[in-house]
Amino acid sequence: MNSVMTLLKSHRSIRKFTEKPLAVGMLEQLVSAAQGASSSNHVQAYSIIRVTDPENRAKLMALSGDQVYIQQAAEFLVFCADMKRNTEAAARTGIEPTMGMTEQLLVSTIDTALVAQNLTIAAESEGLGVVYIGGVRNNPEAISELLRLPEHVYPVFGMCLGYPDQDPDVKPRLPLATVLKQDYYDAQHDPVLIEQYDSEMERYYQARTGGNKSSNWSQSMAPMFSGKLRPHMRDFLISQGFEMK
Amino acid sequence: MNSVMTLLKSHRSIRKFTEKPLAVGMLEQLVSAAQGASSSNHVQAYSIIRVTDPENRAKLMALSGDQVYIQQAAEFLVFCADMKRNTEAAARTGIEPTMGMTEQLLVSTIDTALVAQNLTIAAESEGLGVVYIGGVRNNPEAISELLRLPEHVYPVFGMCLGYPDQDPDVKPRLPLATVLKQDYYDAQHDPVLIEQYDSEMERYYQARTGGNKSSNWSQSMAPMFSGKLRPHMRDFLISQGFEMK
Repeated sequence: MNSVMTLLKSHRSIRKFTEKPLAVGMLEQLVSAAQGASSSNHVQAYSIIRVTDPENRAKLMALSGDQVYIQQAAEFLVFCADMKRNTEAAARTGIEPTMGMTEQLLVSTIDTALVAQNLTIAAESEGLGVVYIGGVRNNPEAISELLRLPEHVYPVFGMCLGYPDQDPDVKPRLPLATVLKQDYYDAQHDPVLIEQYDSEMERYYQARTGGNKSSNWSQSMAPMFSGKLRPHMRDFLISQGFEMK
Repeated sequence: MNSVMTLLKSHRSIRKFTEKPLAVGMLEQLVSAAQGASSSNHVQAYSIIRVTDPENRAKLMALSGDQVYIQQAAEFLVFCADMKRNTEAAARTGIEPTMGMTEQLLVSTIDTALVAQNLTIAAESEGLGVVYIGGVRNNPEAISELLRLPEHVYPVFGMCLGYPDQDPDVKPRLPLATVLKQDYYDAQHDPVLIEQYDSEMERYYQARTGGNKSSNWSQSMAPMFSGKLRPHMRDFLISQGFEMK
């Protein structure tokens, strides 16, 4: 296995950072490398807001689930799906741009994720640590207002970035055979494999919490499917011009 | 700039491949490295279908915009957003899982993209080339049937993978200042920067086509906003259990 693959496999979210800032110009270098990601028809439908204002950091923390590292990390970035530039470019060609198709929501969301993952790899290759913050979707309207996001732009996730002040273990991933399937979606062997994985995750949680957390992967899935998850997202996306037509 | 960042910046889509197959076990290594990607609450909501059956490759090519490399590449993968495993896991805890929230569409789509980008980096670090195939969303229903995708699984994009038999130039990316903004979404300087970028892209297209293609970035945006883009996606996603509630 080459060193890049070793790097990819060593990822774990970092939630405690030293006070060391990024060197001047480093973030720009990371974003520039991240821009190398593929993009659907070269639309590059993303923007990244680097939040430096301490008051806004505090507000973002409060709006995104009170995760203290949002305030403490050297950098906090908000990754936005951005179709504003593209619709404006299309309009310049003389057409009346159609926006709000489900497809456009997918394209811009995927573009944003590809760039963010490239940025993650670039950052980790420099010894930095990151954690994605899905919590920016807790209050996307207030956050959009704070960051002055215009129509056709929405915050997909945040990212804390800085030098790690912790060294957590890598979390075990799903067994390869459950996520890589040949020719057809065949889940015949998944129940047995996931049972084994549940035991592995239970051991992992127990070791990490000194025996305090007794849970497994299957059990930890319940919250995302209990009740309605972020039920405001549909109306919020519509209000930002992503109608899902 | 370190070697990983150089790798990220050197990405270009490869659409012509040699006949050399991947070494035995290589794809599994790449997927395993890709699994290192972050995942929202560790849901790991993706599955990858490796299509080896030549007849199905031919059908997928026809269904995805007739791009010949879908048939010619050493490997063709279909990346699927997959909430099936997760809803079933949640059900095992005794709850009646809620599915079909817009948030769940976003989470699974993002998870899939993060893993795909990791796989891209892993592949390129081994000298392989890739191209994403958004065209699998041209006929997602027929493709889902062909790959026997169950409810709560949908094909997000495909990916051709193999050893490059071409060496295209890296396409210029949007100016950094248009995609990285400080504290607020401020697009004040974007028009001037995008005009410069349009000139750069025009020179790039002319050089690449021996003067035959005279277009720029803004002009190339029109197709995605003319008429309705993949208008079937909404109904298709609903039919797969992604209701966008």
